[in-house]
Amino acid sequence: MPTSPLPSDLAIARAAHLEPIAEVARAAGIPEQRLEPYGRHVAKIDLAAVRDLADRPSAKYVVITAITPTPLGEGKTTTAVGLAQGLSVLGHRATLALRQPSMGPTFGIKGGAAGAGYSQVLPMEQLNLHLTGDFHAVTAAHNLLAAMVDNHLHHGNELELDPRSVAWRRVLDVNDRALRNIVEGLGARIDGVPRQSGFDITAASEVMVILGLSTSLRDLRERLGRIVVGFTYAGRPVTADDVKAAGAMAVILKDALKPNLLQTTENTPVLVHTGPFGNIATGNSSVVADQLAIHTGDYLLTEAGFGSDMGAERFFNVKCRVSGLRPDAAVLVATVRSLKAHSGNYRVVAGKPLPPEMLHESPRAVRAGADNLRRHIEIVRSFGVSPVVAINAFPSDFDSEHAVIREVAEAEGAHVAVSTHVVDGGKGARDLAEAVVAACGEQHEFRYTYELDDTLREKIEAVARTVYGADGVDFSPTAAKDLERFEVLGYGGFPVVIAKTHLSISSDPTLRGAPKGWRLPVREVRAAAGAGYVYAISGEMRTMPGLPRNPAAASIDLDDDGEVVGLF
Amino acid sequence: MPTSPLPSDLAIARAAHLEPIAEVARAAGIPEQRLEPYGRHVAKIDLAAVRDLADRPSAKYVVITAITPTPLGEGKTTTAVGLAQGLSVLGHRATLALRQPSMGPTFGIKGGAAGAGYSQVLPMEQLNLHLTGDFHAVTAAHNLLAAMVDNHLHHGNELELDPRSVAWRRVLDVNDRALRNIVEGLGARIDGVPRQSGFDITAASEVMVILGLSTSLRDLRERLGRIVVGFTYAGRPVTADDVKAAGAMAVILKDALKPNLLQTTENTPVLVHTGPFGNIATGNSSVVADQLAIHTGDYLLTEAGFGSDMGAERFFNVKCRVSGLRPDAAVLVATVRSLKAHSGNYRVVAGKPLPPEMLHESPRAVRAGADNLRRHIEIVRSFGVSPVVAINAFPSDFDSEHAVIREVAEAEGAHVAVSTHVVDGGKGARDLAEAVVAACGEQHEFRYTYELDDTLREKIEAVARTVYGADGVDFSPTAAKDLERFEVLGYGGFPVVIAKTHLSISSDPTLRGAPKGWRLPVREVRAAAGAGYVYAISGEMRTMPGLPRNPAAASIDLDDDGEVVGLF
Repeated sequence: MPTSPLPSDLAIARAAHLEPIAEVARAAGIPEQRLEPYGRHVAKIDLAAVRDLADRPSAKYVVITAITPTPLGEGKTTTAVGLAQGLSVLGHRATLALRQPSMGPTFGIKGGAAGAGYSQVLPMEQLNLHLTGDFHAVTAAHNLLAAMVDNHLHHGNELELDPRSVAWRRVLDVNDRALRNIVEGLGARIDGVPRQSGFDITAASEVMVILGLSTSLRDLRERLGRIVVGFTYAGRPVTADDVKAAGAMAVILKDALKPNLLQTTENTPVLVHTGPFGNIATGNSSVVADQLAIHTGDYLLTEAGFGSDMGAERFFNVKCRVSGLRPDAAVLVATVRSLKAHSGNYRVVAGKPLPPEMLHESPRAVRAGADNLRRHIEIVRSFGVSPVVAINAFPSDFDSEHAVIREVAEAEGAHVAVSTHVVDGGKGARDLAEAVVAACGEQHEFRYTYELDDTLREKIEAVARTVYGADGVDFSPTAAKDLERFEVLGYGGFPVVIAKTHLSISSDPTLRGAPKGWRLPVREVRAAAGAGYVYAISGEMRTMPGLPRNPAAASIDLDDDGEVVGLF
Repeated sequence: MPTSPLPSDLAIARAAHLEPIAEVARAAGIPEQRLEPYGRHVAKIDLAAVRDLADRPSAKYVVITAITPTPLGEGKTTTAVGLAQGLSVLGHRATLALRQPSMGPTFGIKGGAAGAGYSQVLPMEQLNLHLTGDFHAVTAAHNLLAAMVDNHLHHGNELELDPRSVAWRRVLDVNDRALRNIVEGLGARIDGVPRQSGFDITAASEVMVILGLSTSLRDLRERLGRIVVGFTYAGRPVTADDVKAAGAMAVILKDALKPNLLQTTENTPVLVHTGPFGNIATGNSSVVADQLAIHTGDYLLTEAGFGSDMGAERFFNVKCRVSGLRPDAAVLVATVRSLKAHSGNYRVVAGKPLPPEMLHESPRAVRAGADNLRRHIEIVRSFGVSPVVAINAFPSDFDSEHAVIREVAEAEGAHVAVSTHVVDGGKGARDLAEAVVAACGEQHEFRYTYELDDTLREKIEAVARTVYGADGVDFSPTAAKDLERFEVLGYGGFPVVIAKTHLSISSDPTLRGAPKGWRLPVREVRAAAGAGYVYAISGEMRTMPGLPRNPAAASIDLDDDGEVVGLF
């Protein structure tokens, strides 16, 4: 495929025609009186709109996921945007639901995250910076709880909270490794109780997941109240309600529960809402956004973080349980470079260019990595949902390489299409859109990996075997004991989230393709009692990123006209 | 005065008729295309509006200050709101400029800060919570710089920054004493460089002052670049530009530089913008808000924090120098309770009710505290500005007590009026409005306390003697040496801010009235090279508040209809 002389993302974004946001809402059937504008091109949607739209027909519901990505990412958001535009080109009304990007990493390795080329979410500066302040609200609510906990310890500790048991850290939306581990409460007697603690990035906050899973303001308030901050000396959980913080937290988060409406380069409506971490949390956008958007058109596309073993597994087993919505199809974004990487013969590093030899024409290298694609198709099928393989085309790809992916996908009985949405916008995603329409029209019956009344151990084992293809799970003695304790504490009915690397279907980030003959080690388990799940930790999970030697922030600035440069 | 059966602030706020914000802007002459709505009743104003309005006549410029307040505050904001409404009742077009309240203290002792009764700023929930996210932007920009500094130390410290010299702490808008003193960078080698540091409240950030003093986006960018984060081992300053953080900080703050438009209970326009700390920083709302609002009507009222020795002194000597605007009058808010407190015979404690004996009729007790009022009138006169004493009437006041204040003020040649704006709205501030109109009509010539080419020592001494009435200044050896060093480093031309208690005109918070025969001790001096001033620290300055035993947060919640309760 020849390379096209494509203008920069920034140039395309600035040249794009944006509709007034009320017009985008109107086209989606959202009444104007439910909009709270934030500038001219972003609006929050009052949750009363969910009731307004309740009698309208439900859209087909499609989750956008991926095969196991390289550390560079495979353009899942961009493909989701392109596909939404492609469905519009076919004459369908499509709405897209995305997670809000975290601001911290924007100043680290990553730069902005708003799609690419002619498949972007706009306005991209707002999207990548504060948007409507939801992340800031999560930070404020989370840290108010932390302050209330330490204040309780300071003023006599009536609840007999064991300071060493306090698991509620603080959060900031900044990549700051120096805050990972701190000692706080130093100084004089009036400066609090000294103890070890630390900061996570805001996207890793349980408050973020709660915001993403709540179905109403009341549900939000109740989930916040159930957050467990630590345990008494006698081992009883101490909650946010116990330290009287949850009401004020709900007040801080009141507006943050309203989804944000933006648009694509081709004016397709996009709901951007919540950004829970993809490895320790659910990695999906909000339940309320999907509950609203399901009544706004013919197709609702919702993106889930990382590969189908990660965000999509939680989409199916956690988010869909809470929302009550049933997916019709799953799009697996695949790229030539990711399949080549799964051959195990190349080394791809975040923040570095691809090894040049990966750009040579090599259908053989693509085929050598095809097991990963096959496994993800199986994962999607395990949920009873129709798989569609989206080949996200890069200028450096060759037709012979696309042909291999197509052949593998078809051999598995999956729909498949090449999409050139980055270069061509919605027109380039026309084939993909047709494949998605066909998949949604097929007979399918959605099912979970496990039932809620299975034990926590059984749920973790079911995900490990059915989704990851592991031979079983090895629980550490502590993890096994804690799982029993969680059943006693009443968390046994929760679904599970397994915190593992996203760079392999297995728990070992160095294993490419579809690893076989391995067991999932579970070192530690924790309960997110407010969000309502138990998570099992397999491997090293970093919840506060650091900045690289040359952070993106160093090149971001205002030009002489006050315009942002270097963000993309 | 009989007590009136006044509805609660919340009931009055909910019953108030709010104009669409575009209508409020139109009445003030601000073109609609310069508005960026944030919900229906708040808008940011693009700074291009400053140019749009430049040819319109300038309003009379009135600073709202106070006598030395009790720890409960004396209703300065409320009086400012009432006066703006009173001027409108007289047929003048008035605009009000206020600082944004800090969210942290709202959850501590304080509760909301939006005026009271029929003199409130609306919508009060937005005002007291996130508003348009400006404080959050300051937090994010400040902490990005902190992360960049620690990242520089982590990745080899090319600039040879001495870690022990790093004075740039982190900030959060939460009352959290446990963060005052921390050790960060603990853990493994990849978790940063261990060092002592801590957190201040966001309002205490130099970034907040910079936002308040910048006259344009370019000026903001340059001031951010000049922030000094620490010194090299050789003693040279290391700036935000040196660690390449200032461009990204400016990008984060781009929208925060735009003033926020709200309205009063009677639909008078209010610009709410920036909230720098009153004791270590300037304690004034933004320069850009005043530069814009000076062309929006007949009168611009701008509030300065604490008493005239504090916020107003910095308003005159720092803010007016930067803005180029010249004040016409100063309103000194006085209350019966504050004058009684200055008698030295009562003990008023923050967060506690007044001692009941303060509510007995006692013109004698008021007279016993009158020296404080006399001294504040002298302070205002020292700047060549006409003083107006505003008696903010409380239901518990007696006419005999108001008569004493009136007598004292008139004996000093000041204008004076009783104002019942809390109970009566603008109509109750009619007399006060007439007094302000009269004061602005008088001959006056504004002057500073010192010239910029005086030495830093001379400037500090001038404020201490002329404004505080001290006999002189005692510099510690370190402070004296640092002042010399600052002259060498090029900070000699900066104005000065003296960080001292606001509870006395002196530096001793226990001294009531108008203390005489004392000298100002200066323990330490610091340069805020980005904001552009040197500050001298006299006494203990707390830059991170703590929560009380029973914080306001514990009573704040959502009711069954999702409405906020307990915030006021």
